[in-house]
Amino acid sequence: MSVKEFPSLNEQQLQRLVYEVTQFGLSNGLIMYPPAPYSNYQPVLAPITIYPTPLPRDQFLKSLDIQLIYNKLYANIVSENEWLTNIIKTLSSSDKDFTGKLWDCYLKALNNGIVQDVSLSLTRSDYMYDELSNQIKQVEFNTVSVSFGGLSSKVGKTHQYLNQNGLYSNNGDNISTYYKENEIVISESDEKLATGLYTGVKYYNDKYLNGENKSIVLMIIQPNERNAFDQRAIEYQLSKNHNVITKRVELPNVLSMVKIDKNNSNKLYYQGLEVSVVYYRSAYGPSEFNQPETWDVRINLESSLSIKCPSLLTQLSGSKKIQQLLTKKDILSKFIDNDLEINKITDTFCKIYPLDESNDGLLARKLAFEKPDNFVLKPQREGGGNNIYKDDIPNFLNSIPKSEWEAYILMELIHPKIHNNIILRNGELLNDGIVSELGIFGTYLFNEKTGEILNNNVAGHLLRSKTSSSNEGGVAAGFGCVDNMYLY
Amino acid sequence: MSVKEFPSLNEQQLQRLVYEVTQFGLSNGLIMYPPAPYSNYQPVLAPITIYPTPLPRDQFLKSLDIQLIYNKLYANIVSENEWLTNIIKTLSSSDKDFTGKLWDCYLKALNNGIVQDVSLSLTRSDYMYDELSNQIKQVEFNTVSVSFGGLSSKVGKTHQYLNQNGLYSNNGDNISTYYKENEIVISESDEKLATGLYTGVKYYNDKYLNGENKSIVLMIIQPNERNAFDQRAIEYQLSKNHNVITKRVELPNVLSMVKIDKNNSNKLYYQGLEVSVVYYRSAYGPSEFNQPETWDVRINLESSLSIKCPSLLTQLSGSKKIQQLLTKKDILSKFIDNDLEINKITDTFCKIYPLDESNDGLLARKLAFEKPDNFVLKPQREGGGNNIYKDDIPNFLNSIPKSEWEAYILMELIHPKIHNNIILRNGELLNDGIVSELGIFGTYLFNEKTGEILNNNVAGHLLRSKTSSSNEGGVAAGFGCVDNMYLY
Repeated sequence: MSVKEFPSLNEQQLQRLVYEVTQFGLSNGLIMYPPAPYSNYQPVLAPITIYPTPLPRDQFLKSLDIQLIYNKLYANIVSENEWLTNIIKTLSSSDKDFTGKLWDCYLKALNNGIVQDVSLSLTRSDYMYDELSNQIKQVEFNTVSVSFGGLSSKVGKTHQYLNQNGLYSNNGDNISTYYKENEIVISESDEKLATGLYTGVKYYNDKYLNGENKSIVLMIIQPNERNAFDQRAIEYQLSKNHNVITKRVELPNVLSMVKIDKNNSNKLYYQGLEVSVVYYRSAYGPSEFNQPETWDVRINLESSLSIKCPSLLTQLSGSKKIQQLLTKKDILSKFIDNDLEINKITDTFCKIYPLDESNDGLLARKLAFEKPDNFVLKPQREGGGNNIYKDDIPNFLNSIPKSEWEAYILMELIHPKIHNNIILRNGELLNDGIVSELGIFGTYLFNEKTGEILNNNVAGHLLRSKTSSSNEGGVAAGFGCVDNMYLY
Repeated sequence: MSVKEFPSLNEQQLQRLVYEVTQFGLSNGLIMYPPAPYSNYQPVLAPITIYPTPLPRDQFLKSLDIQLIYNKLYANIVSENEWLTNIIKTLSSSDKDFTGKLWDCYLKALNNGIVQDVSLSLTRSDYMYDELSNQIKQVEFNTVSVSFGGLSSKVGKTHQYLNQNGLYSNNGDNISTYYKENEIVISESDEKLATGLYTGVKYYNDKYLNGENKSIVLMIIQPNERNAFDQRAIEYQLSKNHNVITKRVELPNVLSMVKIDKNNSNKLYYQGLEVSVVYYRSAYGPSEFNQPETWDVRINLESSLSIKCPSLLTQLSGSKKIQQLLTKKDILSKFIDNDLEINKITDTFCKIYPLDESNDGLLARKLAFEKPDNFVLKPQREGGGNNIYKDDIPNFLNSIPKSEWEAYILMELIHPKIHNNIILRNGELLNDGIVSELGIFGTYLFNEKTGEILNNNVAGHLLRSKTSSSNEGGVAAGFGCVDNMYLY
């Protein structure tokens, strides 16, 4: 199949399209809050592309296919407690502010006693489609607070509506569809992430509440969350499909609002309601961990009977260092014993080097200074925004103490295809080349002690796009938005 | 059944409720545009009550039951062309600016030739629950551009969500429902009004397009429509459930955007698309008819082959004068031949007097000056906002020429029950007594010449409420909002 460019519309058709995108999106909750001042009752349309962006169908199917393997892999990593904690301990000394603090929380929780071995993970594996290899390559595997699963479903529905209502028609008839029906695939991530949360709720209810559906999900959010409606979309699915109530509480307020009943198996209560699942949509960034109350929340809740989504160990399993280590076959094969599965996922790996004093590390230190143009330097922690690209790498490394180099990994750059699309943001159109990142959501419920995986699911997709003013390849700074793909 | 007051919540619970109402509403399209400056991408939560408002179940069921009779009645009135046009002609001379202009449009269209006898009507019969008689009493029967059918479904879902998620719980457990499930009834008006439009589309497609589903609905709207999302909700149902495309065009732009093919049965085209149904969400207020282009649109489209929703005659059948005449049994029985049906609807009538020189009219002129406190004076035209209440009636009548009195009807005041509720509007809470108006939607497709009714349906409900700072009874000036009922 050859790839279609987006339809070329005349000025009047384009205006009409923008009007339709906007009102369909607003009417269907494809919204966020604008930057401060934060007004609770006046949102704006979330930044989106007005057309779907091309992605090869086979690569999309592959990304779905391997999600269960990735889920299993990361569950297995967490249940290899000694292996994981040794690595995290080492990392903690070079990345004190983040990995170090999470590790500290874990140690303190351990000391208090961890009574719940079962843990829930809502993940997103992110890929870029690499033009050179014609393959998707993994950017990262996110194990905490993965976002945009709610809005992703809505942007797919928006593009589908536009297509079905002739708004993409450019053959003069104003009615025909431009994309075939099966070329636009709608993510069921809102529904499936809710179902993922429900697996945790149900496990808890069955085990501790005689199957009665009366516990709640406690969603721990950031103050003044601009992306509230992405979270809400999942919450409303959980209410509608599973009759489970979610309560939202801001991270700094948690401890004043909850009670852990030490006389009753460390059950967690929020306003008298028993909490089966603690769902973090916060507590993933270093700045949050600058506040002592964030630590206290993590430590306290970790010792409760509620199922954490994610637990501290599961969150830590997503560090870049682990991703780098998994590129070594001898390590990967510790966690996955099936060669076919190993091959499937290594296909999506980029070359990743440590910057430590191992042989690989020493090689990487050389490459970083000699061929920086092929690389991106990434801190271990998740969250993005702190990557150093190409020419900037040598200067950056020289600017920090050598002892901190180990907190970074050096990753071969992916060469993403640049597509044309139009981003609609704050009522303005950005007509530019964009690069896109595909995310596949997954959910798994597992026992961190025994390694038993109780539930493992793929949970839909996300396409995010950013303007790219150059063809340099890395995720250049730019205006990000929610997108959806047209499969070719 | 006794009526429950809304749950008394503490300050914290109330704040939480407001937060939940707001985000659920925004996430589900319960929105409007704020007043100017008009920004296409930044809506606000529509003004709503945060609790449902009590209404007796038997009266609600009755209002649904009689909607088909009302639909049939008004269809029959239109097909009694001579009777209707005689009345309208007389009215035109006293209400030149509105009835007169609509009548003028009709005469001109008639002169051009009216080729489509089948007409579609989306109506709303409005009632108040009268405390004195314990009955619903009809306020008016609207035959053009009836609104809030889209948002009504969403406010019902909002109240249901709040109830099911324990936000109304006031027994300290924060989880139990306050209303029983069947006490909150959700209006299916978004879906059913769309189905109503589809009956027109389907009739047209079957008759003129060999059953092919390729015509569109042309929705004619006002510029800078603040209530766009109410309209959109219906449009999206039409697309989703019936695969029919709606195009929106602003009233002043219609004639530059459409073409009537005089060589092909006066078929109407919009951007090359054949229009089966012209759906007016505009052209109902006197101020619109001050602009000559409004007339031209009405005249031209009336002569097209498209089915009008409504036709000029159907719109005119909704004038208050007709409503007043129907209170006379000898007139009513011209249109409804079944005594049971007659009794059912006359039960909902208020006493309405003409202000002309008939015996009834002369009596009314006396009452208006002697007992104004029992009455409201209403202009013939629809739309509201120009009613004169009680003590103001004598002065008002004295201020206009006697020749214009005939343009008004005198109506006995309804004594609505005043309920407590809290209106959320622009992020502020108005905690006051409210009065509510129940609207029942209906759709009917009929042949204006033969009187044959091709389709007749009830299409859901609406509850609108307004603050009432006094117990005077009439729809006092106040802040209106969308509401939904709890049935007791």
